[in-house]
Amino acid sequence: METLFKALEEEFDNMVDFRRDMHMYPELSHHEEKTPEKIAQFYKDLGLEDVRTKVGGRGVVATLEGGKPGKTVALRADFDALPIQDAKDVEYKSKIDGVMHACGHDVHTSTLLHVAKVLFQNKEEMPGKVVFLHQFAEEVIPGGAKFMIEDGCLDGVDAVFGAHVISTMPFGKAGALPGAAMASGDTFEITVQGKGGHAGMPQHNKDPLTVATTLFQSLQTIVSRDTDPLNSGVVSVTTFNTGQPNFNVIPDKVELKGTVRTLDDETRDNAEERIKQLTKGIADAYGMSAEVNYTRGYPVVVNDDDETVRILEVQRQVMGEENVIDIKPQTSMEDFGYYLQERPGCFFIVGGTMEDKDDVYPHHHPNFDVDERAMINIGKIFIATVFDYNGEEK
Amino acid sequence: METLFKALEEEFDNMVDFRRDMHMYPELSHHEEKTPEKIAQFYKDLGLEDVRTKVGGRGVVATLEGGKPGKTVALRADFDALPIQDAKDVEYKSKIDGVMHACGHDVHTSTLLHVAKVLFQNKEEMPGKVVFLHQFAEEVIPGGAKFMIEDGCLDGVDAVFGAHVISTMPFGKAGALPGAAMASGDTFEITVQGKGGHAGMPQHNKDPLTVATTLFQSLQTIVSRDTDPLNSGVVSVTTFNTGQPNFNVIPDKVELKGTVRTLDDETRDNAEERIKQLTKGIADAYGMSAEVNYTRGYPVVVNDDDETVRILEVQRQVMGEENVIDIKPQTSMEDFGYYLQERPGCFFIVGGTMEDKDDVYPHHHPNFDVDERAMINIGKIFIATVFDYNGEEK
Amino acid sequence: METLFKALEEEFDNMVDFRRDMHMYPELSHHEEKTPEKIAQFYKDLGLEDVRTKVGGRGVVATLEGGKPGKTVALRADFDALPIQDAKDVEYKSKIDGVMHACGHDVHTSTLLHVAKVLFQNKEEMPGKVVFLHQFAEEVIPGGAKFMIEDGCLDGVDAVFGAHVISTMPFGKAGALPGAAMASGDTFEITVQGKGGHAGMPQHNKDPLTVATTLFQSLQTIVSRDTDPLNSGVVSVTTFNTGQPNFNVIPDKVELKGTVRTLDDETRDNAEERIKQLTKGIADAYGMSAEVNYTRGYPVVVNDDDETVRILEVQRQVMGEENVIDIKPQTSMEDFGYYLQERPGCFFIVGGTMEDKDDVYPHHHPNFDVDERAMINIGKIFIATVFDYNGEEK
Amino acid sequence: METLFKALEEEFDNMVDFRRDMHMYPELSHHEEKTPEKIAQFYKDLGLEDVRTKVGGRGVVATLEGGKPGKTVALRADFDALPIQDAKDVEYKSKIDGVMHACGHDVHTSTLLHVAKVLFQNKEEMPGKVVFLHQFAEEVIPGGAKFMIEDGCLDGVDAVFGAHVISTMPFGKAGALPGAAMASGDTFEITVQGKGGHAGMPQHNKDPLTVATTLFQSLQTIVSRDTDPLNSGVVSVTTFNTGQPNFNVIPDKVELKGTVRTLDDETRDNAEERIKQLTKGIADAYGMSAEVNYTRGYPVVVNDDDETVRILEVQRQVMGEENVIDIKPQTSMEDFGYYLQERPGCFFIVGGTMEDKDDVYPHHHPNFDVDERAMINIGKIFIATVFDYNGEEK
Repeated sequence: METLFKALEEEFDNMVDFRRDMHMYPELSHHEEKTPEKIAQFYKDLGLEDVRTKVGGRGVVATLEGGKPGKTVALRADFDALPIQDAKDVEYKSKIDGVMHACGHDVHTSTLLHVAKVLFQNKEEMPGKVVFLHQFAEEVIPGGAKFMIEDGCLDGVDAVFGAHVISTMPFGKAGALPGAAMASGDTFEITVQGKGGHAGMPQHNKDPLTVATTLFQSLQTIVSRDTDPLNSGVVSVTTFNTGQPNFNVIPDKVELKGTVRTLDDETRDNAEERIKQLTKGIADAYGMSAEVNYTRGYPVVVNDDDETVRILEVQRQVMGEENVIDIKPQTSMEDFGYYLQERPGCFFIVGGTMEDKDDVYPHHHPNFDVDERAMINIGKIFIATVFDYNGEEK
Repeated sequence: METLFKALEEEFDNMVDFRRDMHMYPELSHHEEKTPEKIAQFYKDLGLEDVRTKVGGRGVVATLEGGKPGKTVALRADFDALPIQDAKDVEYKSKIDGVMHACGHDVHTSTLLHVAKVLFQNKEEMPGKVVFLHQFAEEVIPGGAKFMIEDGCLDGVDAVFGAHVISTMPFGKAGALPGAAMASGDTFEITVQGKGGHAGMPQHNKDPLTVATTLFQSLQTIVSRDTDPLNSGVVSVTTFNTGQPNFNVIPDKVELKGTVRTLDDETRDNAEERIKQLTKGIADAYGMSAEVNYTRGYPVVVNDDDETVRILEVQRQVMGEENVIDIKPQTSMEDFGYYLQERPGCFFIVGGTMEDKDDVYPHHHPNFDVDERAMINIGKIFIATVFDYNGEEK
Repeated sequence: METLFKALEEEFDNMVDFRRDMHMYPELSHHEEKTPEKIAQFYKDLGLEDVRTKVGGRGVVATLEGGKPGKTVALRADFDALPIQDAKDVEYKSKIDGVMHACGHDVHTSTLLHVAKVLFQNKEEMPGKVVFLHQFAEEVIPGGAKFMIEDGCLDGVDAVFGAHVISTMPFGKAGALPGAAMASGDTFEITVQGKGGHAGMPQHNKDPLTVATTLFQSLQTIVSRDTDPLNSGVVSVTTFNTGQPNFNVIPDKVELKGTVRTLDDETRDNAEERIKQLTKGIADAYGMSAEVNYTRGYPVVVNDDDETVRILEVQRQVMGEENVIDIKPQTSMEDFGYYLQERPGCFFIVGGTMEDKDDVYPHHHPNFDVDERAMINIGKIFIATVFDYNGEEK
Repeated sequence: METLFKALEEEFDNMVDFRRDMHMYPELSHHEEKTPEKIAQFYKDLGLEDVRTKVGGRGVVATLEGGKPGKTVALRADFDALPIQDAKDVEYKSKIDGVMHACGHDVHTSTLLHVAKVLFQNKEEMPGKVVFLHQFAEEVIPGGAKFMIEDGCLDGVDAVFGAHVISTMPFGKAGALPGAAMASGDTFEITVQGKGGHAGMPQHNKDPLTVATTLFQSLQTIVSRDTDPLNSGVVSVTTFNTGQPNFNVIPDKVELKGTVRTLDDETRDNAEERIKQLTKGIADAYGMSAEVNYTRGYPVVVNDDDETVRILEVQRQVMGEENVIDIKPQTSMEDFGYYLQERPGCFFIVGGTMEDKDDVYPHHHPNFDVDERAMINIGKIFIATVFDYNGEEK
């Protein structure tokens, strides 16, 4: 294992180069063209031949068979960027206007490629098989993971692992959480249709604000009355607009948008059902109509208990016991949840705060950046996990 | 006319005697036994033979035919008392525990009887016919008027008039209002059925307070959004109870009671419909059930425009121009509205404040009383109206 | 009187010409330049010398002294236009893009000028004095009437009268209402300031929708609980916006706009006070802040009882008893209320529906137009009122 | 250890006898007289002399010094009963009308006494000291624990442990939870003072239902908007009464009662603060007054992480690895939380379902009962913990 870790460390400059090149040429979700080409080219240059492209659309899946018998482990990295204008003042700043790797997917991708390189170069020692999942469109519902799974990317896979670098977690730290680790994230749009008209003659109109304000208050009871207090649920209305700008006319309709975040399916299913039932009932009550458009986003990321124990042990080995810290579930989302619906596995996090900077910028911020050495840490955990999973060097 | 007025004035002591006797022996609505007997006996003693008893249950209807041709005018007085303990310190204080003439129906009855006496004694001069309606059960929905009408008390009648003495209107004053003069008064009972249980585990219960509080707020929109601002409507919730007295259990149900007051049928119909629709819709919204029991009370007292002009003119003649004062509609109720649904007519008011008392007590108060001379004023207006209606001595 | 009526009828073609010229060259409130010049020129051409211009800004006030002794009567016509694109297909269509006499102020102005002409030509017969009030900026709060009064336009005036042609009232009809005839119209703007942020972490934010939706529902109680059901009040929220268009962020603030309409000052004062108190209390309750910007619009148009009786009698004389119809108060507004706060008087309405057209368009509609003969009717009522007020030819 | 376990098992009949005697003669919280006497007598009979009675009121604290050096461990059992009528058909049924050991405190007490007996008889082998805390009034806020601590029952104590038999947990099972294990439970009473009166004239009253219903809805936001979704909080209104039974009168006041349950102090403090702020703000908004009476109940039972690990290990030793099961926090309450505010320790649960019965009755049920062998299990865990804490026989 030490050999492999050393080999990975020696790849650091290459990892940085690849990451920075990707950082300068980011591509938006569902518009990734050059990125998957570069990834496929990387494997070709390496000599690894089992590479499928356009998996589920734009994904790349490479498979490496080890020299020893064993099981099949999938490692995943996502590669799409965000519609954000890069505001950093660095050489590798994005060259594409309004597009930026502001979530670290470039880091994930370069890490996984160089993990593949190290494993390829040591494949005789490697047990089982490793499937490298390079995923497109992680940032946009319903998520590229869904399409890649439908296109067979998990066929023959026994377990799946993924990682996220976190700009607000100190460099050198890592963590993983069994069970529900990241929230599901659904969205809803509700249109309450009234009948607008003269503000001085309400009796001739149907004021849709009566329905919409009652509904807002009723929505609070989904969490306060209908959700097990030991579970977690959020129902937020984020937009509430009558649109028109005047003083004289009762509005014709009100448009609401919002989101539902949960860490379990029961809470999620209940929230969707209650939103629909409350909307219909309250609109009926006032003799108006209302339409709910509810869109399921990513599922909850549910880490397998045993695989999380494994990852925590690997993290302790790789990074030192004191560097594996307790973490809480997140109300942010990840489409990695789709893989975990199909296979056991674990999605873990690794610290990436840049120590020499005054400010720490969160993900999706125009100044987002991370300590590139986090790639070494993620990479080592990936490599050790492959061996550990096959019962070696525990 | 002066002859008749004089004759009535001379009956004043008799009027007082009859009223005080009635005051000492009040009878509750639907339990009037002696009172209608005394009324019938009065007519018998007078020699007036056309008297029907038990009309619609407990009513008494006497008919007097005049010596001259003319139309038929009905005059009405109610005779039931209230479940209130008389607190006055007078000789004629109620002798019946917990029952009291606290609304002046004794005054109305004695007045009408002595109007009948005077007219009977001058019947040769009297044009047309007069029907004396002695009504039971005015205080209790649905009102004795309804039953008496169903039993034919208005057959052959051309117009109907009634009066109310008012303890809070100065003695010597009178008034009448065309159109809607007194409100309709309906009641509703709503039971919201939830599912009670452990206050720490709301997810296993159905908290009926969510429905009931939302409903209370929605009921406000019946008046604020659905009622023509130029009309009048009141929807009041008067009772809102979960019943149980503890800190640990979410209640099983909530019971609401309330009342609807309006001055027109459109507003009234709308309120009933909206209460039912709001209750059903909101209970549906929360997945609970709720039952509405809506009881129509008395209709709006709608005075005929022309007959009100007549009454106002008669009042000016009888009481002096300066004593006929402007009045506003009342949100209190009267079952006289039933008669006015069937025939044109007018329900007017006459002042009865006792000038020598320090305090003025409103109707339904344990210390309620009135200046008995108001009987003379009501009586004169009744008599003059009979003649005026037949085109005489205008 | 017949002479004067005849003279007015003979002016009809001139009245139409002047009105149509004005119709083609409408000027917006506070931007009236040519219109007051034309009005002043009309008086100059007539030979009437007592003319003040720029009264209160852009008003024109002409005074005519009659040959007989008497009181001073003011007659008012407004002359500003609206920011509406004329959609009619007529020769006299507006020549100014986006500006239109869509409320009949051109009709009012031409009428008043020709009333002045007829009275001027018969001034020896005329009792007292007549003040012709040509008012600017009626359409925009706070209203030109306010400024003209401050500039002395009512000095020496005993009573003031005004008229409005109504496109939806049949030609040939007229009406007037004693007491509150047209509503006050105030506006309010409320900004609820919360603290926006991540929709999945509501505990770190202050969701302003909690305050704003609670407030909306509480505002309903101003009418449903705090307003005498025999009075009229409307509180309408017309705009309710969080502004932002996304699914992920709890909004930072909510902006509400709305209007208050009442027919009496008690209801109006209460509404303003309650809006402020409810907003402050509910924002406090949720630990947020909210600002209310309440703007008083026009006062209630309160017609003097006696002057309304006068106008109704004049209307019956001029137009025939059967053509004076019952009208209800209006929830629309007029700055004529300012004059009536200072002097007794009456603001009345006259029908102007064009009988030969298929559709009737309401005021402020791009196809608004009226039967120009309404000018004769308004003019005659004005003339007769001047004489009647001085006790002649009643 | 095996020796001690064996000794305890041999005490089983005595344990049952003591428990059943206690079961037949239950005493209500703060009215315990015979029970503490019997407990003190037990120690006296044993020969254990260091016994304090009337600790904090009615508590009994016995201290046993072992023959070996070591730390001081406190073990606690509560001994009060509930105001429930025993409905069981057994020989040891409660002989006191309306009072019953329906929560297992008799089981706890008998267990602790016989643990003391076994340790006393083997005190030479015992390291350190053991303090036996026999607590009164666990069922009634603010809880006897509070008074006993104030009276010094934890002086010199290093760690404190307690147990609860659970009728709905299978016999033979046990569990413990690090961190927040049982909820805090506070109560609140809110009186909204309006001004009652005629239901047809709301403008003369102050309808307290406007405040109370708005408040109910606003209280929902404490959980839905202001509580971290990863924490647990419940705010339940359990009582909402206007009191009066009629249809005609707007109520004068509304009385609410309710409870707050949380598993952490931040959520608890926030709930109390928000209830007070919301009540004040909303009452102010409507120009009424409202009073909040908030009573802190028991604190959260927060088990020490290390001591919980210890208890779980002891449970596995005593009961077998497969019998130590995962448990979730409870929204029920325990005043054991007070001890854990002062000292590290753990409150654990042990299964007591009676296998031979058809039905399982929950705590506080008239048919509540448990498998008495649970006393052996609790006792062994107590004994092993004492030794484990002092580093022996781990």
